[in-house]
Amino acid sequence: MKNKIITFGEIMLRLATPDHQRFTQTVAYEASFGGGEANVAVSLANYGLDTEFVTRLPDNDLGRAVVMELRRHNVGTNGIIYGGERLGIYFLEKGSVSRPGKVIYDRAHSAISEVQPGMIDWDRVFSEAGWFHWTGITPAISKGAADVCLEAVKAARERNIMVSCDMNFRKNLWKWGRKAEEVMPDMVEHCDIILGNEEDAEKVFNIQPDRGDVSAGDVDSSGYESVCTRLKDRFPQAKKIIITLRGSVNADHKYPSYELHLF
Amino acid sequence: MKNKIITFGEIMLRLATPDHQRFTQTVAYEASFGGGEANVAVSLANYGLDTEFVTRLPDNDLGRAVVMELRRHNVGTNGIIYGGERLGIYFLEKGSVSRPGKVIYDRAHSAISEVQPGMIDWDRVFSEAGWFHWTGITPAISKGAADVCLEAVKAARERNIMVSCDMNFRKNLWKWGRKAEEVMPDMVEHCDIILGNEEDAEKVFNIQPDRGDVSAGDVDSSGYESVCTRLKDRFPQAKKIIITLRGSVNADHKYPSYELHLF
Amino acid sequence: MKNKIITFGEIMLRLATPDHQRFTQTVAYEASFGGGEANVAVSLANYGLDTEFVTRLPDNDLGRAVVMELRRHNVGTNGIIYGGERLGIYFLEKGSVSRPGKVIYDRAHSAISEVQPGMIDWDRVFSEAGWFHWTGITPAISKGAADVCLEAVKAARERNIMVSCDMNFRKNLWKWGRKAEEVMPDMVEHCDIILGNEEDAEKVFNIQPDRGDVSAGDVDSSGYESVCTRLKDRFPQAKKIIITLRGSVNADHKYPSYELHLF
Amino acid sequence: MKNKIITFGEIMLRLATPDHQRFTQTVAYEASFGGGEANVAVSLANYGLDTEFVTRLPDNDLGRAVVMELRRHNVGTNGIIYGGERLGIYFLEKGSVSRPGKVIYDRAHSAISEVQPGMIDWDRVFSEAGWFHWTGITPAISKGAADVCLEAVKAARERNIMVSCDMNFRKNLWKWGRKAEEVMPDMVEHCDIILGNEEDAEKVFNIQPDRGDVSAGDVDSSGYESVCTRLKDRFPQAKKIIITLRGSVNADHKYPSYELHLF
Amino acid sequence: MKNKIITFGEIMLRLATPDHQRFTQTVAYEASFGGGEANVAVSLANYGLDTEFVTRLPDNDLGRAVVMELRRHNVGTNGIIYGGERLGIYFLEKGSVSRPGKVIYDRAHSAISEVQPGMIDWDRVFSEAGWFHWTGITPAISKGAADVCLEAVKAARERNIMVSCDMNFRKNLWKWGRKAEEVMPDMVEHCDIILGNEEDAEKVFNIQPDRGDVSAGDVDSSGYESVCTRLKDRFPQAKKIIITLRGSVNADHKYPSYELHLF
Amino acid sequence: MKNKIITFGEIMLRLATPDHQRFTQTVAYEASFGGGEANVAVSLANYGLDTEFVTRLPDNDLGRAVVMELRRHNVGTNGIIYGGERLGIYFLEKGSVSRPGKVIYDRAHSAISEVQPGMIDWDRVFSEAGWFHWTGITPAISKGAADVCLEAVKAARERNIMVSCDMNFRKNLWKWGRKAEEVMPDMVEHCDIILGNEEDAEKVFNIQPDRGDVSAGDVDSSGYESVCTRLKDRFPQAKKIIITLRGSVNADHKYPSYELHLF
Repeated sequence: MKNKIITFGEIMLRLATPDHQRFTQTVAYEASFGGGEANVAVSLANYGLDTEFVTRLPDNDLGRAVVMELRRHNVGTNGIIYGGERLGIYFLEKGSVSRPGKVIYDRAHSAISEVQPGMIDWDRVFSEAGWFHWTGITPAISKGAADVCLEAVKAARERNIMVSCDMNFRKNLWKWGRKAEEVMPDMVEHCDIILGNEEDAEKVFNIQPDRGDVSAGDVDSSGYESVCTRLKDRFPQAKKIIITLRGSVNADHKYPSYELHLF
Repeated sequence: MKNKIITFGEIMLRLATPDHQRFTQTVAYEASFGGGEANVAVSLANYGLDTEFVTRLPDNDLGRAVVMELRRHNVGTNGIIYGGERLGIYFLEKGSVSRPGKVIYDRAHSAISEVQPGMIDWDRVFSEAGWFHWTGITPAISKGAADVCLEAVKAARERNIMVSCDMNFRKNLWKWGRKAEEVMPDMVEHCDIILGNEEDAEKVFNIQPDRGDVSAGDVDSSGYESVCTRLKDRFPQAKKIIITLRGSVNADHKYPSYELHLF
Repeated sequence: MKNKIITFGEIMLRLATPDHQRFTQTVAYEASFGGGEANVAVSLANYGLDTEFVTRLPDNDLGRAVVMELRRHNVGTNGIIYGGERLGIYFLEKGSVSRPGKVIYDRAHSAISEVQPGMIDWDRVFSEAGWFHWTGITPAISKGAADVCLEAVKAARERNIMVSCDMNFRKNLWKWGRKAEEVMPDMVEHCDIILGNEEDAEKVFNIQPDRGDVSAGDVDSSGYESVCTRLKDRFPQAKKIIITLRGSVNADHKYPSYELHLF
Repeated sequence: MKNKIITFGEIMLRLATPDHQRFTQTVAYEASFGGGEANVAVSLANYGLDTEFVTRLPDNDLGRAVVMELRRHNVGTNGIIYGGERLGIYFLEKGSVSRPGKVIYDRAHSAISEVQPGMIDWDRVFSEAGWFHWTGITPAISKGAADVCLEAVKAARERNIMVSCDMNFRKNLWKWGRKAEEVMPDMVEHCDIILGNEEDAEKVFNIQPDRGDVSAGDVDSSGYESVCTRLKDRFPQAKKIIITLRGSVNADHKYPSYELHLF
Repeated sequence: MKNKIITFGEIMLRLATPDHQRFTQTVAYEASFGGGEANVAVSLANYGLDTEFVTRLPDNDLGRAVVMELRRHNVGTNGIIYGGERLGIYFLEKGSVSRPGKVIYDRAHSAISEVQPGMIDWDRVFSEAGWFHWTGITPAISKGAADVCLEAVKAARERNIMVSCDMNFRKNLWKWGRKAEEVMPDMVEHCDIILGNEEDAEKVFNIQPDRGDVSAGDVDSSGYESVCTRLKDRFPQAKKIIITLRGSVNADHKYPSYELHLF
Repeated sequence: MKNKIITFGEIMLRLATPDHQRFTQTVAYEASFGGGEANVAVSLANYGLDTEFVTRLPDNDLGRAVVMELRRHNVGTNGIIYGGERLGIYFLEKGSVSRPGKVIYDRAHSAISEVQPGMIDWDRVFSEAGWFHWTGITPAISKGAADVCLEAVKAARERNIMVSCDMNFRKNLWKWGRKAEEVMPDMVEHCDIILGNEEDAEKVFNIQPDRGDVSAGDVDSSGYESVCTRLKDRFPQAKKIIITLRGSVNADHKYPSYELHLF
């Protein structure tokens, strides 16, 4: 039985100021790599599962460093393709108590944002795969990334591979012409498992909870259940709808995330 | 008498691996800022001269950090304009003995590369100026940067401000459509002082030394003199032609640079 | 309208042990610069106001580093004078939970402590000024510093510049012969705005609250109001009296400061 | 037989910028302790000899850190006395190739500079001692330090303890009123062993070599021999005269020191 | 009166990952030295008492670094003997909130584990001693260490030296053949002061509290008193029985320890 | 065609003092992993070859960190087995000019030293292999390691896999009972390629050069040729004999190594 888990998306160079220093103070950055879909692959590999992360990286030492880091965590890298001009970067300044953290994204024009349908050999990528996971961040990056994401979802469905999606709506990313509500439905309707929260549901599918105000963060448990029911109505092929919640005390203290599984 | 010295160009975030670590090893980068024209302004300010550096920076904390660093060195920043999406970056890995150093440029789409004529208020910038310095790196960045550089040179000439230029030919930068030999002559013909070396002269103006082979680095002092003479013939308005030379023993040891001044 | 804000006082080299290391363990110090009056100038400059910090610095690279740091924060440094032998230093060891922090002051004989009336050109310093701020730390340093502080306050008043003072009584600093209660009144009677707390009021002006025990830290809000009223009675020229309060949980956690404004 | 070796002098906090950073760049200092006489005690203790370093330290955690470091190296600290206000400091910026290193001394008003005759219990210090070593730096610090140094030399002679002296003339230190040539002879005439170079001999005792120019550094081996002979004539009690020489290539490379022993 | 305090046991190299890094991430370790009995000696020396720590160290630079660190804290090291092959090591990864800390012990075959009776000159060690302190960790290390510990306890009793013992049962250490309950009684019956907790009492002497469940951590104050009473019954020579308790909130926050003194 | 390259041996935790600090000074160690046979696998993987490193590691996070580092460099780790108590360690102090570097080995009782024949599944390891490389360090570790090394060499020969050996004689390692000259010949006689130098040849096989003195390092090129010839005579199955030479200027500067290939 084929059981490799494939995730697809962008991985970026993460440059964080040391301690609690500001961008305007620092003389050094701590360097690592981050991206939601790659993090999922690393976490599953830590549990001993067979995983592979697919992306497009620049053919330079920064791209090579990404591959080495993935390999270190036992994540497969054979489906990664090379080309384009740069690796996306995000700069991180940790917050402190009442001062919020700051992120400066510098990810435009990254190698993955310039990916095009046909570049990735999904036949080979999916040859041993049993599961495919993607998030709403990838189609937000660029038209090319959205097209390839749809290409991947369809290729997975054709091969009867389980497909899961974290909707993860990021308003600031959707700048390439079409909107999330125009692009996402075609992809989500191929998914077996849908993850997200009430804000994703509202912004991407215009789904409101029975009670409560999404933008005020004032939704109770029956509200969440109604969001799940409406997502299920809209996407009847889905076998599971999962709401993820996370809270924070202040910039230093976040709550762990909780999940509400339905169906 | 007006005696402020204005330099114009790109300043980038310089991210260097610590010690002699490779890009594929490092978990941190040392962060500073670098750019030839800004370096000239800082050096002259260290000698007590009144200087100002003009550029275009993104309106975020990385742009603000640049301004703070310039101010720290007493370089004027009032002519800097804000906009665009990103600060150019270059990654640096120091070489060691027989292993050469490496640079990864990530400067495409920087704020300064998207500058357009009319954006910078040269009237105000030059109001106290006695000298304007630019280099061949700036017109190489983009059509917009080249147009603004020409705009600046002409504005300086109209105000009888001394203009100096370091030709500094960088083949890999000239990608925006027109070539250095098409773009540079219009600018250099407004310059009072021209700096460069035999390779710049050959690549930009097709000027060869009397004797010796430029690409083999085999040019002697009479060869350098002939290059100067031909540059002077081509640009008779120039009051001074300066050849700068620099050698290296290996990746750890460079010679200081020498200069040959003519006329 | 003239609106530059001038602050005057001592700025010191701040040498802090890394993390929570003790003075008797450390092999390195983190170096920055600190002083209440300079901090005020930096904070106001961060809000975009036009500020200048006036002090006396040694004519060496430590003095130059101070000036560069102030300039980085856009604080004017033209009124700073140079001379004397040393920059004041304070060593800082952070506390941890029940272990209190430690400070070793090494500020005697600093350049500012040897300042004398006539050295600073208040005419030039105040030429664009609309506000002058000083604190009770400066006259505590030395007779010279006290004399120059009084000189500054009078010069500001003569030019109708708004004067504010943070009383900031520090018993350990007042060692040069005269006491705070002998020296401060002549200066405070020229101030438009007086800041401090009940302890300053008691120690410097022998003002007690209606109720409560100052040395036990047991003063309630009506007690604070009575302190304000008595300060106002003593200094009728003052337009505003401000009490600042600050609490702490333990060595790691301080409360933010609160302010009580009267009149 | 009594064989403890006592050295006496100043030990300072040594604050060095990391790598080759300038004072005007650094955000940290490497902290250690240094002083010629303490270094001698540490070196001899490393060879297994019984040593003790005598000085005066401030009664704070910086003084305690000095004692802990000496103890770590097995140097006795029982003769150290406590008092005064501060520990002397020197700031160090390493040079690089053609850029010379820089030192900023901040040692005025140190605890040892305010030592007075009678403070140190030489009876106890010398109770097990067979050798006493001092240098010309100590009497240069202050009148008190010079008086105590003479006190120590005489106390050692009375007890038939071997006395050695490194003349080590430092022009910039001698500021307290009397000159080296007035103060040093009374001390050196009690010494069994005299170390130094031709410059010390000239500046302190007005002794010239037969041939060569001291200030030009142009002295040959017969010149050095004549300096030794004249030192011996001047101080006939001396059993050994030692000239120490040291050269340097540039700021990064020093030669090891050589010694010329006579008599 | 003789009043030196002697402690005896193992001191190890402590290698801790920086910040909250995992063993599988780190590229550096913070190095210090730790061991319960040495910590007692250092703490008492900090209070000004005359102490000496006795152990066996390898005759290499790691052993020498241990001695230098002890000397720095004014702990006597003359009774330390040298030999064997290695210094014990423990690797430490700090926990974070719900992730527990990790320790990897690498202490087998250490110099002290191979100590044998007759190697340490207890006559000389105890010549000035008034107190001897040991813990249950030492006999757990190896048969040799247990034999020498008993040798020391007996030697101390013969000289009427006060003996204290912290039972400190560590199940994972007792691997050399005999069990704690077989070995410890012979040693504890020579002790004047016995420290420990209810778990030590149960595991080493099979002593249960009147009420409560030791393995569930559910023992109240009368339970602790009954443990003390039974320890006193079992070891009637003991002058004091002390129970030490310590709690923790999570991996980042421990409570300070409390003590219950009886008799 | 099978072309995987297998190397077998010990990999250790390498703990190096930062900069040029001494073991007796350092408060931190830089951590990496090193071992000759693993280094060969990493280097070949960097050239794009298919490699696998076989060893025995402790089943703890230090062992896991080794595996992650190997994977990062694309070296196969499937043949690694787990067990035993510890990872071998070596401590490194860099030399400086005339002060030689120091190494403290702490590798006794490592997991690989306790390997036994039958533990490693050579059938699976060699299933895709075309080349097997080992060095003289492995049989020096312990009887078990020597037995397994012979087991591996024979298993490789049976499968017609190319076998190469670097003799690498280390006198201090051979402590387990039998000598290199007793153990090595049985293994080397199965090798196709033999690497080493004149000292290895003398110490392991008692082979002398025609001319020159091995212990004095005084051997010329004809001497090296005669060593090769005699090695070939002794091991006629060998297809290539390679002499590797390396020189050094001082502790900071080593020459690159040179090789002399024969046959």
